[in-house]
Amino acid sequence: MLKEFIDKDFLLENQTAKSLYHDYAAFMPVIDYHCHVNPMEIAQDRRFENIAQVWLGGDHYKWRLIRAAGEKEEFVTGEGSDYEKFMAFARALPKAIGNPVYHWTHLELQRYFGCNLALSPETADEVWRICNKKLADAAMSVRGIITRSRVEVIVTTDDPADSLEWHQDIVSDKSFQTKVLPAMRPDKAIHIDQPGFAEYMRRLSDVTNVPIKTLDGLFAALESRIDFFNGMGCRAADHGLDEVPFEANAEENAGAIFEKAINGAALTDREVRQYKTAMLLFLGRQYAKHGWVMQYHYGALRNINAAMFQKLGPDTGYDAISGCGCGRGVASMLSALEETGELPKTILYSLNPNDNAMLVSIAGGFSGSGVACKVQHGSAWWFNDTKPEMEAQLTSLAGRGLLGGFIGMLTDSRSFLSYTRHEYFRRILCNLIGGWVENGEYPNDVKALGEMVKDISYNNVSKYFGF
Amino acid sequence: MLKEFIDKDFLLENQTAKSLYHDYAAFMPVIDYHCHVNPMEIAQDRRFENIAQVWLGGDHYKWRLIRAAGEKEEFVTGEGSDYEKFMAFARALPKAIGNPVYHWTHLELQRYFGCNLALSPETADEVWRICNKKLADAAMSVRGIITRSRVEVIVTTDDPADSLEWHQDIVSDKSFQTKVLPAMRPDKAIHIDQPGFAEYMRRLSDVTNVPIKTLDGLFAALESRIDFFNGMGCRAADHGLDEVPFEANAEENAGAIFEKAINGAALTDREVRQYKTAMLLFLGRQYAKHGWVMQYHYGALRNINAAMFQKLGPDTGYDAISGCGCGRGVASMLSALEETGELPKTILYSLNPNDNAMLVSIAGGFSGSGVACKVQHGSAWWFNDTKPEMEAQLTSLAGRGLLGGFIGMLTDSRSFLSYTRHEYFRRILCNLIGGWVENGEYPNDVKALGEMVKDISYNNVSKYFGF
Amino acid sequence: MLKEFIDKDFLLENQTAKSLYHDYAAFMPVIDYHCHVNPMEIAQDRRFENIAQVWLGGDHYKWRLIRAAGEKEEFVTGEGSDYEKFMAFARALPKAIGNPVYHWTHLELQRYFGCNLALSPETADEVWRICNKKLADAAMSVRGIITRSRVEVIVTTDDPADSLEWHQDIVSDKSFQTKVLPAMRPDKAIHIDQPGFAEYMRRLSDVTNVPIKTLDGLFAALESRIDFFNGMGCRAADHGLDEVPFEANAEENAGAIFEKAINGAALTDREVRQYKTAMLLFLGRQYAKHGWVMQYHYGALRNINAAMFQKLGPDTGYDAISGCGCGRGVASMLSALEETGELPKTILYSLNPNDNAMLVSIAGGFSGSGVACKVQHGSAWWFNDTKPEMEAQLTSLAGRGLLGGFIGMLTDSRSFLSYTRHEYFRRILCNLIGGWVENGEYPNDVKALGEMVKDISYNNVSKYFGF
Repeated sequence: MLKEFIDKDFLLENQTAKSLYHDYAAFMPVIDYHCHVNPMEIAQDRRFENIAQVWLGGDHYKWRLIRAAGEKEEFVTGEGSDYEKFMAFARALPKAIGNPVYHWTHLELQRYFGCNLALSPETADEVWRICNKKLADAAMSVRGIITRSRVEVIVTTDDPADSLEWHQDIVSDKSFQTKVLPAMRPDKAIHIDQPGFAEYMRRLSDVTNVPIKTLDGLFAALESRIDFFNGMGCRAADHGLDEVPFEANAEENAGAIFEKAINGAALTDREVRQYKTAMLLFLGRQYAKHGWVMQYHYGALRNINAAMFQKLGPDTGYDAISGCGCGRGVASMLSALEETGELPKTILYSLNPNDNAMLVSIAGGFSGSGVACKVQHGSAWWFNDTKPEMEAQLTSLAGRGLLGGFIGMLTDSRSFLSYTRHEYFRRILCNLIGGWVENGEYPNDVKALGEMVKDISYNNVSKYFGF
Repeated sequence: MLKEFIDKDFLLENQTAKSLYHDYAAFMPVIDYHCHVNPMEIAQDRRFENIAQVWLGGDHYKWRLIRAAGEKEEFVTGEGSDYEKFMAFARALPKAIGNPVYHWTHLELQRYFGCNLALSPETADEVWRICNKKLADAAMSVRGIITRSRVEVIVTTDDPADSLEWHQDIVSDKSFQTKVLPAMRPDKAIHIDQPGFAEYMRRLSDVTNVPIKTLDGLFAALESRIDFFNGMGCRAADHGLDEVPFEANAEENAGAIFEKAINGAALTDREVRQYKTAMLLFLGRQYAKHGWVMQYHYGALRNINAAMFQKLGPDTGYDAISGCGCGRGVASMLSALEETGELPKTILYSLNPNDNAMLVSIAGGFSGSGVACKVQHGSAWWFNDTKPEMEAQLTSLAGRGLLGGFIGMLTDSRSFLSYTRHEYFRRILCNLIGGWVENGEYPNDVKALGEMVKDISYNNVSKYFGF
Repeated sequence: MLKEFIDKDFLLENQTAKSLYHDYAAFMPVIDYHCHVNPMEIAQDRRFENIAQVWLGGDHYKWRLIRAAGEKEEFVTGEGSDYEKFMAFARALPKAIGNPVYHWTHLELQRYFGCNLALSPETADEVWRICNKKLADAAMSVRGIITRSRVEVIVTTDDPADSLEWHQDIVSDKSFQTKVLPAMRPDKAIHIDQPGFAEYMRRLSDVTNVPIKTLDGLFAALESRIDFFNGMGCRAADHGLDEVPFEANAEENAGAIFEKAINGAALTDREVRQYKTAMLLFLGRQYAKHGWVMQYHYGALRNINAAMFQKLGPDTGYDAISGCGCGRGVASMLSALEETGELPKTILYSLNPNDNAMLVSIAGGFSGSGVACKVQHGSAWWFNDTKPEMEAQLTSLAGRGLLGGFIGMLTDSRSFLSYTRHEYFRRILCNLIGGWVENGEYPNDVKALGEMVKDISYNNVSKYFGF
């Protein structure tokens, strides 16, 4: 029987799924443990003039779709007006059947704007009017959106040199209930092969008042920032890696390699990997010491279109999935940390969905006494944040690990409307479990299943990070 | 409820799918933009004596199945009679449950021969009789088959040195409505590491009257053939690559490498990659200049069985899928062309289905102003031309790109009966979309969806190639 | 409609599937052509005191789940009592929704213990009582379990140096009907790069009375053991390989490399691959001569957690899937054997499910005259022994090969209760085929389909190995 478009039982294809979602999952608050929202906008409680600002201000998922539809860059990141950009999006979107952006867009229209229209060139003006009217309401400020989304914790992504001034501002305002915590992303201290490394060392030295002439100096500076972040409530670090390197005995040479680099000498590929290995080991041990969660995001080909990179810079929709496997590197890194008892809780994400099976099998080799699912295979990421790939990640994790211990969803988003992605995930989760139960693959004990769904939606991640 | 075998609603599992297929997709003509049929057989309007000639004359998909069933090579490519070979196929086929050859065979029996039997040793004689009787009908000549299949355009695959005499013949016969256009496949000019390269240079020199002693000479000869092909209506080029190479600064050394090769010196692997990189860049720029579509087919392990290769030569059923990823090479090649504004429209195909996600993510990084879906992830190819893998390719493309802009199906076939594969594709497409709609994942606007289905079946490819 | 948990139609989702399973597949005996049970326990007809001994004595699948749940090692492989370990398993299992261990556990409870409870902390004591009472019954000895499971043939996995004394014992006891045959796994003679290689050479020399100072000596010793195994009814060999190596002209250098190794000199990576290539070629030819089946299991990352490897040794739950592709190596190895007409029947297994498509395409390039499906893509292995991955392997094989010629399931298990995995496989197979038939993708001829299902469940493997 044909279902209405995104009705209340959206993605819930059987009775058990409906019960699990409506009676259990839907009630749980949101912990968004990894995202890229701007803490300044929370501190200042930003307001939006129109829906284009919310949707199209920084969302490279949507930019890619608009470009793919053949629209000019003017209407994507260029001089076009907000309205023109919105109309370009409205022209592209109907072609995006089967794309999660199609679902996210309409979930957001329904949940935040009470608008049940399907966006298309025909409805675009009406949608524009409805949304902008709603955005004029003070309740649709950044904090208003967060609060009505029942977000308990937001974890931003921050450079070690960041002052975290906006996080401090937010903490000091007792009227706002949601915790907004930093997570450290020390990529610039790891990517010794990227332009700007030496300059970044100077910046970090300035921020910490620690001279960084040697690797030990850099370690000292990072330790000082880790302490500072920790004091600000930080519970996690994240790493954006092309591949997860591992070179044996890397720590012996890393100091000399570092000095070569800041003195402007060229490094071999192997030296780069040795340095990165040593740095990731150092950082992993620090995280373990502070009880932080370590995240590895790897497998992206960044900035693949050189011409557009020169025009627009990074994070503008010109990244792709790499073919990288990296199993040996990931496993060796975790093993080296574990050997000295310094393996922190770890979440592994690859941008290549072919790595699902491998990563969950590696994770299962590093269980920790007394910590449920210590190493996790993270939720489907970025290009895989689609219904079929989320199902694939959950199915792979369940088939090779312990789904009941999974820490679940994160938005990874730059937008404050994307908390509906937690709803999207929970519906998919409940539908998957409901399907197994209805097919006789798991006992029909809805109460126990409801608890499991609540765990995966909220309780597990809360315990895992220790918020 | 059990459906009849290949009835009118074959593969259409819901009402929306049935409407989309029967009311929209089924009416669209066919553009077969990449195949390997022999233009001579069209020019001469070949007739077939029996069904074995049509089915088993050059179809290595079927040869593999027959061999897998344990039949002797005598009944595959050997001395066996047409009837004996047909009987060997009839013995093997019933075991091929879940194989697209099973579906293609019976679609062809139904559509071209009005025969609803399921081929097996029991029915083989009856099928043989029905088909051969039908083939005796003049309407079942090559042109008859093409015309009744409503094929508007056929794009063959041709060596640059080819005279295109048969294409000329076909053009000059105004009674035949289908356009039969060449596509250039300059593999022999690229594969500098293959035996026969120097000899091929002499042949190309003879055909063009351009001396080929240097790389510039080869470029000049190829330009002359590209102009000639273009004059013959060519709109596309294709490349069969083991992997997509990319070496930085390749063009600096390519001339010297070429001269080494034609003078019989051995090349290093890196030199081979440098030459190929430079040649692919040269060709890509030529295609851009002429508005051609560039196709990369990569990821095959060719001629894996050396003993059978010595007996039967290439394209006889001894190829396989390689494990190659090649993301970096593909992305770098496209980026290098884009940097000078010379990236042609491009279709990417990997024989390894694990590359689906990667390729669609790379394609999305090279959108072109005013060209919808300029770089495409091509339809599931060869070993992946199965229902589940076609669904996987469509789902991956939809989830990470813009399905509404997809250019859809091609046969890649050597057989004139294989136009039913377009029907097969369209049914799968309509079923996938119908399923989403019925599940509430897209609005139930059958008219708009019908237009989308028509676009993917025909309109998009027509516009994309500019036929 | 909601189905009861593991009822008689478990995993059979349509009427055709039910007919195929209940009327055909269920009646076939079991041939378990690859497993790791201990022949001593068959010879001695071991009895078990409690369910923990059967389930948790050596099953690293279950150990991983218990560890993942955060239990202490004490209750996994440590000092904990059998009851405590069982309770730890009962605490972990309910979280393992979607994991085959959940299904295997309950199939075993139902089939061997007549127990329909779902294991959880609440039911654990009752399950413990029921199982242990049943195990006290003499009919639940190792031989009793094998006999009631209707196992016709068990193929164990044995080192060439093994005396096969327990196999001899079993043969000499005419009261036991099941054939228990050895399979040779000469990994220690192949892994020249592993500690203990030289020592193993001495052991093999002692066992055979052949001096092993040269590679020819090793070949002679192995030949003697192959003859001995063959005399004991051996029909198969197996290899556990990280990757499938292939170096051209490896045999020229292998002798010198071997002598370097046993004299304690370090080998380069290339030398290791050359030696392994030469050894695998030698072995393959031996297998061909004796009509044995050659099995390659590759793609595992072994012992990834160094700390736990030092504590517990190998095969304790610390292995993972590697990212390896190996297509070129596999294809080259088979081609080299085929060139001299010495390619044995071969089964290919990769631990990385991404290799499914590649392996079945390679297998199809080595069909043998008169041998149906001579090279096989083996059933989903280890981390892929899940319902969705078994379906994926079957679907890939069907779509790219000849499912009707598949040799089907093996347990690969260390446990005597795991014959229910054959039931699990047969249900999945029947469901898949039934689904195709009900969807009009194959003619509804249940009798012919029933024969196909019987072939894949039993007849094919029986003929293939020649038991």
